[in-house]
Amino acid sequence: MSETHTIALMPSGRRGDAPHGAALLDAARALGVEIESICGGRQTCGKCQIVVEEGNFPKHGLASAPNHLTPMSAAEAAWLAEHGIAGRRLACACQVVGDLLITVPEESQARKQIIAKAATDRAIEIDPAVRWVYVKVEEPTMDSHGGDWERLQKALADQWALTNLTIDSVVLPTLQPALKQGKHKATVTLWHDREVLRVEPGYKDGAYGVAVDIGSTTVVLHLCDLRTGAVLATEAAMNPQVRYGEDLMSRVSYCMMEPQGLARMHRAILVALNELAGKAAARAGLTTDDIMDAALVGNPVMHHLLLGIDPVELGGAPFALAVSESVDLKARDLNLKFHPAARVHVLPCIAGFVGADNMAVQLAEAPHQQDELILIIDVGTNAEIVLGNRDGVLCASSPTGPAFEGAQITHGQRAAPGAIERVRIDPLTLEPRWKVIGFDDWIAPSDSIPESARATGICGSGIIEVVAEMFVSGITDADGRFDENGGERSPRIRFNGRAGEYVLVDESQTATGQPIVVKQTDVRAIQLAKAALYAGTKLLMRHRGVTAVDKVLLAGAFGSYIDPKYAMILGLIPDCDLERVMAVGNAAGDGARIALLNKGQRLEALRLSRWVQHVQTATDANFQTEFVNAMALPHAADAFPHLAGLIPQRPAAGGNGRRSQRRRAVTAPAS
Amino acid sequence: MSETHTIALMPSGRRGDAPHGAALLDAARALGVEIESICGGRQTCGKCQIVVEEGNFPKHGLASAPNHLTPMSAAEAAWLAEHGIAGRRLACACQVVGDLLITVPEESQARKQIIAKAATDRAIEIDPAVRWVYVKVEEPTMDSHGGDWERLQKALADQWALTNLTIDSVVLPTLQPALKQGKHKATVTLWHDREVLRVEPGYKDGAYGVAVDIGSTTVVLHLCDLRTGAVLATEAAMNPQVRYGEDLMSRVSYCMMEPQGLARMHRAILVALNELAGKAAARAGLTTDDIMDAALVGNPVMHHLLLGIDPVELGGAPFALAVSESVDLKARDLNLKFHPAARVHVLPCIAGFVGADNMAVQLAEAPHQQDELILIIDVGTNAEIVLGNRDGVLCASSPTGPAFEGAQITHGQRAAPGAIERVRIDPLTLEPRWKVIGFDDWIAPSDSIPESARATGICGSGIIEVVAEMFVSGITDADGRFDENGGERSPRIRFNGRAGEYVLVDESQTATGQPIVVKQTDVRAIQLAKAALYAGTKLLMRHRGVTAVDKVLLAGAFGSYIDPKYAMILGLIPDCDLERVMAVGNAAGDGARIALLNKGQRLEALRLSRWVQHVQTATDANFQTEFVNAMALPHAADAFPHLAGLIPQRPAAGGNGRRSQRRRAVTAPAS
Repeated sequence: MSETHTIALMPSGRRGDAPHGAALLDAARALGVEIESICGGRQTCGKCQIVVEEGNFPKHGLASAPNHLTPMSAAEAAWLAEHGIAGRRLACACQVVGDLLITVPEESQARKQIIAKAATDRAIEIDPAVRWVYVKVEEPTMDSHGGDWERLQKALADQWALTNLTIDSVVLPTLQPALKQGKHKATVTLWHDREVLRVEPGYKDGAYGVAVDIGSTTVVLHLCDLRTGAVLATEAAMNPQVRYGEDLMSRVSYCMMEPQGLARMHRAILVALNELAGKAAARAGLTTDDIMDAALVGNPVMHHLLLGIDPVELGGAPFALAVSESVDLKARDLNLKFHPAARVHVLPCIAGFVGADNMAVQLAEAPHQQDELILIIDVGTNAEIVLGNRDGVLCASSPTGPAFEGAQITHGQRAAPGAIERVRIDPLTLEPRWKVIGFDDWIAPSDSIPESARATGICGSGIIEVVAEMFVSGITDADGRFDENGGERSPRIRFNGRAGEYVLVDESQTATGQPIVVKQTDVRAIQLAKAALYAGTKLLMRHRGVTAVDKVLLAGAFGSYIDPKYAMILGLIPDCDLERVMAVGNAAGDGARIALLNKGQRLEALRLSRWVQHVQTATDANFQTEFVNAMALPHAADAFPHLAGLIPQRPAAGGNGRRSQRRRAVTAPAS
Repeated sequence: MSETHTIALMPSGRRGDAPHGAALLDAARALGVEIESICGGRQTCGKCQIVVEEGNFPKHGLASAPNHLTPMSAAEAAWLAEHGIAGRRLACACQVVGDLLITVPEESQARKQIIAKAATDRAIEIDPAVRWVYVKVEEPTMDSHGGDWERLQKALADQWALTNLTIDSVVLPTLQPALKQGKHKATVTLWHDREVLRVEPGYKDGAYGVAVDIGSTTVVLHLCDLRTGAVLATEAAMNPQVRYGEDLMSRVSYCMMEPQGLARMHRAILVALNELAGKAAARAGLTTDDIMDAALVGNPVMHHLLLGIDPVELGGAPFALAVSESVDLKARDLNLKFHPAARVHVLPCIAGFVGADNMAVQLAEAPHQQDELILIIDVGTNAEIVLGNRDGVLCASSPTGPAFEGAQITHGQRAAPGAIERVRIDPLTLEPRWKVIGFDDWIAPSDSIPESARATGICGSGIIEVVAEMFVSGITDADGRFDENGGERSPRIRFNGRAGEYVLVDESQTATGQPIVVKQTDVRAIQLAKAALYAGTKLLMRHRGVTAVDKVLLAGAFGSYIDPKYAMILGLIPDCDLERVMAVGNAAGDGARIALLNKGQRLEALRLSRWVQHVQTATDANFQTEFVNAMALPHAADAFPHLAGLIPQRPAAGGNGRRSQRRRAVTAPAS
């Protein structure tokens, strides 16, 4: 048995080594995962419950490992038995004796995830697919023809000109009781003026729906009043599929390797949706039975898993979707516990990597309605890029990987309290300042800070800023290599052989007791990600035959937190007046709300999904060229006039090969 | 505790007393219910399993009675435990110590029910709602637009001109695997050329459906090949709702009195349908997953219970249906375990007492397509009467009660082995001859017969014949009263005070060891039933303005077994050339098959359900008059010229009141 063991902790995705015999609570903390504990390890408070995951975790390659923790003590077993809890351990009572994959349940997480929650206020014309009308229905007599459903149809035709209606069969049993109780007056809820979903006695005003953005990592649900469009409650949670694979391809692999994989992930997301809906309804003083409609968006893999479709075809060329057009179905057919007759609308996908979530972004930002040429960048694990205006819209996806989200970065982590989200480096002293989520002030080395301000890692916006600042201050060169003489400029620049690293936060100011550093590999990971993103953008611009755009919109949580200046310094986005670069928040969620609240926009989305032109990055030779060209930072000043004055215009410090030579030749005159 | 206890036995509905302490096996046999037993009561064969019913049985008024049998012996408990059986007793091991409601499961019944099973051969144009086509689908490439569903739609449009299709969401997950396995060739099953129900790899030929007639007493299911229309298997079973109430009104009452009543009966019929479908599929070498469509019929109460609709409104004026038009739904929404995407079509009802079963009878016999004036009589617990031709069709229901089915008759029983089905009485000696179901020869008193030929009771056709023969031979008079001097003509005529009875079978020739007699009350019950039926017919004829019909069709099992001559002697049907009176078998089941196999006939049924004129018997003053007039037997010879020579034209023996006086005055000249 090795000296150390690998531990992975869900849902944060943190991963690292722990010495043999380490207390699990400490090992988790060392990796930046704070597990709740009130009793101080006396096995009495039970706050530190964790789950040892069973089954294969393809990404981590760990075997089922329930025996990689020390056996249960009598005290632990007694506490669990007394509280009727099975399948969990108390982290404070366990020692690590092998590789582990652990889930920290939400209630055991000491530092909860921060998720962009508030639905943006957008002007949406309220014309939902689900509406309701009040009717007076003829009373039956001995001479009546037809039944109550036929009398209701007559009332709807006479009083509302609604004809050719069907009725959901689950509503039939409620018809006579409702008419009786309402003394033959009733409120009828309709779907698309075609199907009766509900009949309530007397006059009722109100129906509710949910708009849901199913992200790979986060699921956000808005409960909306279909009368006013108001968002009554927003709930968010981790996508529970994370435990089966962190990124999209891991989940596709899980489906391929594990016969129950599809069923598990399908069920998991539905359970999560039911929980979110239940919480949102409770918060709004409603029940899930009040939910009559839902609009759902997600990337193609999320979309397929939601519908119970094996995403395996999305894992390889030609990346064929099973279905691209919008899907209308009954909530009950997905086992969603809304009203028994509630409907679900899943927005259309565009291509194997451009899904209903991007369609929703396009609905929300509507480039197809504008004269200006708009670039929309939605960075998640993949980046979706949209470029266009009313003359045409192009879209593509680009394999940025998860580096922008803090994954695959030495001290990367998701945006959560303790994460470094802002960084400045003094160009002369190379001393850093930083901000951590959950603490208001900027922090400098040797500042005396409360424990809650101690850094746990670097999140997406922080990693972008630190890599950009490292370049601006000359710690790294245009090729991303550490200045070989940097160690003379500052003790924060250290070398391990040829591999440099920058000490961003000293151990005294971190929660883990270890310094937080940015390594050569981290800079490389960001370079790869930004090159993929920029190459995708350039490819679309080349297809469109333009060299500049009028406006850049950054969608998603990532877009909300990064500073456009640093995005441009790193070359994530093409040159543009920085005032014309703006974050648009959870545009996918907004698009889902639009589809929920306006039935015409559902048709518009369907039309757009066929009208928008998808550009394949994977097979385009130009993409490869652009990708290689985009590796270096910064970009030529002539290509980025809006960066003039923001970055030092000096030649790249290192430079190897023809590519950087050429770049240096271009930038040299300005230096 | 009383000397005797009341025992009721389901599903036969037999009921009677048993002495305290009687062996249950013997007590059941004494009531004409043979329970299987091979081991001779040694509690080893387990063939005599019975279920002691829990809960209230409104018709019988018995309390829950599990303790009204002697406790379980060690041998009985051991046998049940060894075979893993719970909730049952072995009849051979129990003694009666209280009132009991017992169900004898089908496998424990020594004499199985006979049910008219074979679907009549009818010429039906095969054009089912569910059909299938073979298509070649474009393979996806990197440049494809849309998903596999869109490519399938294109193939269906190009190769079959099928457009505007939807796909059942449960089919979406099967799409890509089917196309892959079939190398992009597939067989697509469609519903009404509108919805895709199934996609199978490669070329497949065949889809199957079920046509079901849900009777109050019996459920009959035909499994049909939708390609050829062939009936591959027919299965029948008792309607399990019988345990909650024998007749329609008992079941309506059960819903009113028992909060779980509706749910229980709804579930019970669906369980039965799943069992029947499973058996039929197995018999045909198929699985229930092959069943893609179903056409269901039943009377309004059966129809509502099937759909989970409380039938309470059908229990009182104005007898309002919840829904009268046809209902299309998914099998899974009724929890029917067919193919996951299978459809169900429930035929329309006409009025509160004239249901989808009658609609099916009209589809099968099509009076609306004929020049001749057709009278269709479908006798079950209620009688539905249809009168019409292409100029118009009238229908009504008449409350005959269950006497024609052998219920409420002293020794009445359902048609089953041992039941007397034919009777002749010598007009001079008044000695009877009879036939029992399951034995080929006519039997006379003192004949030596095998045990299997011993009579257990009188079924519907037998009771009609014996009452008719009693009248023809002068045992009873036109008012149904026993000849007061009959005892002098034959010892078989006995009086208990003024109440006469006729000994049809001596105790030596019965299975119960008790004589089978026909009592004054039995004659009265038949008179009431036949008067209701005839009055309904006369009412329709009066509405139509006719005094005669061209043809009489007797539908249902009852119609198949009764002799038209005796039906006319008793006055069940109006006068008509006997050769123009014919049994048409299970016309409701045939109509269901027609709807299953021809989608145009579904529309025709919907059209008819609105076009047919329903006549209310309950509120029509003429009905009451006709009812009173129809009590006597026989009818006047001038009203029944086709009976001349069949019945003695002599005056009624008794005669009381103006009505019989008038009738006597009419018949007198012919005597």
